[in-house]
Amino acid sequence: MALSPLVGRLVDALRCLPGVGPKSAQRMAFHLLERNREGALDLARVIAEAVESVGRCESCRTLSENALCPVCASPRRDSRTLCVVETPADMAALDASAGYEGLFFVLMGHLSPLDGIGPAELGLDQFERRLDRGGIDEVILATSSTVEGEATAHYLAEIVRERGIRATRIAQGVPMGGELEFVDGGTLARALVGRRDAR
Amino acid sequence: MALSPLVGRLVDALRCLPGVGPKSAQRMAFHLLERNREGALDLARVIAEAVESVGRCESCRTLSENALCPVCASPRRDSRTLCVVETPADMAALDASAGYEGLFFVLMGHLSPLDGIGPAELGLDQFERRLDRGGIDEVILATSSTVEGEATAHYLAEIVRERGIRATRIAQGVPMGGELEFVDGGTLARALVGRRDAR
Repeated sequence: MALSPLVGRLVDALRCLPGVGPKSAQRMAFHLLERNREGALDLARVIAEAVESVGRCESCRTLSENALCPVCASPRRDSRTLCVVETPADMAALDASAGYEGLFFVLMGHLSPLDGIGPAELGLDQFERRLDRGGIDEVILATSSTVEGEATAHYLAEIVRERGIRATRIAQGVPMGGELEFVDGGTLARALVGRRDAR
Repeated sequence: MALSPLVGRLVDALRCLPGVGPKSAQRMAFHLLERNREGALDLARVIAEAVESVGRCESCRTLSENALCPVCASPRRDSRTLCVVETPADMAALDASAGYEGLFFVLMGHLSPLDGIGPAELGLDQFERRLDRGGIDEVILATSSTVEGEATAHYLAEIVRERGIRATRIAQGVPMGGELEFVDGGTLARALVGRRDAR
């Protein structure tokens, strides 16, 4: 092997990143060592600091180094609407592009009994306490349109409705720019069922 | 912004990796914090250690934390053949797949006067001293088949021949599995010029 042991260990360590195979890991290692040692040191420091400090927001369970994440800490959000998502990435996507102004609750997964992920792992006791505190008019269920995401949304909808709070599910249908010819049958069926009066 | 400041800094820091845009950086940050904190800490430690310890092999200039890299330190390599490459990645590629058994010299770039990269930056004084020490029968010029790589190979060939040592250039032609129809004209021309008696 032409790599020195430490460079080889760096290549191996970089493979813990998602989507990084042996070739890209090697390219990354050489890039850091040949061209950007300062950036590499900064990366090492920030990773260590984040692993040390980042926990979960007390209110919405997203990743945050403070007790409250920026969204929950903001006085400008509409606290009467709560949007339930599976991951911090989903939360970031809805917040960045969709102009959603309410609050979030992050499950950090979806119900998956075979993998040992039940209500406790998703923090649903915390979710119920949140609803019981009052002040919420609507819970938007924005879990994924997968089998597990749907099952999770159904389960949550019951918890929400039991308390007399409105539970809604994000719309399913043809994505923007989607040509009908290439949209799968299941999605088309949902798009038909969910049709609305044309404006 | 839905990300906490420290998570945001982690996303930014990950963008120093080559080929990592904002979306992948966010995915990597969430992956490390949600699913692999141990791997993340290990990565941070290895990066810091590598930046601290990895320098260049005294003999071939590749990246190495020891005075000699594993290839130069090996007693089993054929020390009469020296292969000149542009980068440690090129060295690893030749060593891993091509069954090359000689030694290397790594330029860490190619001649590029406009970017201020001349003979000194490529360690050519060290290269000449290496040749003058004697014991080398052939120098294989394995720089890239780009304009700069060709120019560098020409320049090196003169240095080598001046000393009465054989200088060879790796063959250019149709890549394995390449269908002629899709190979560019320049490559086809080189393949014709470099033709050999059929066996």
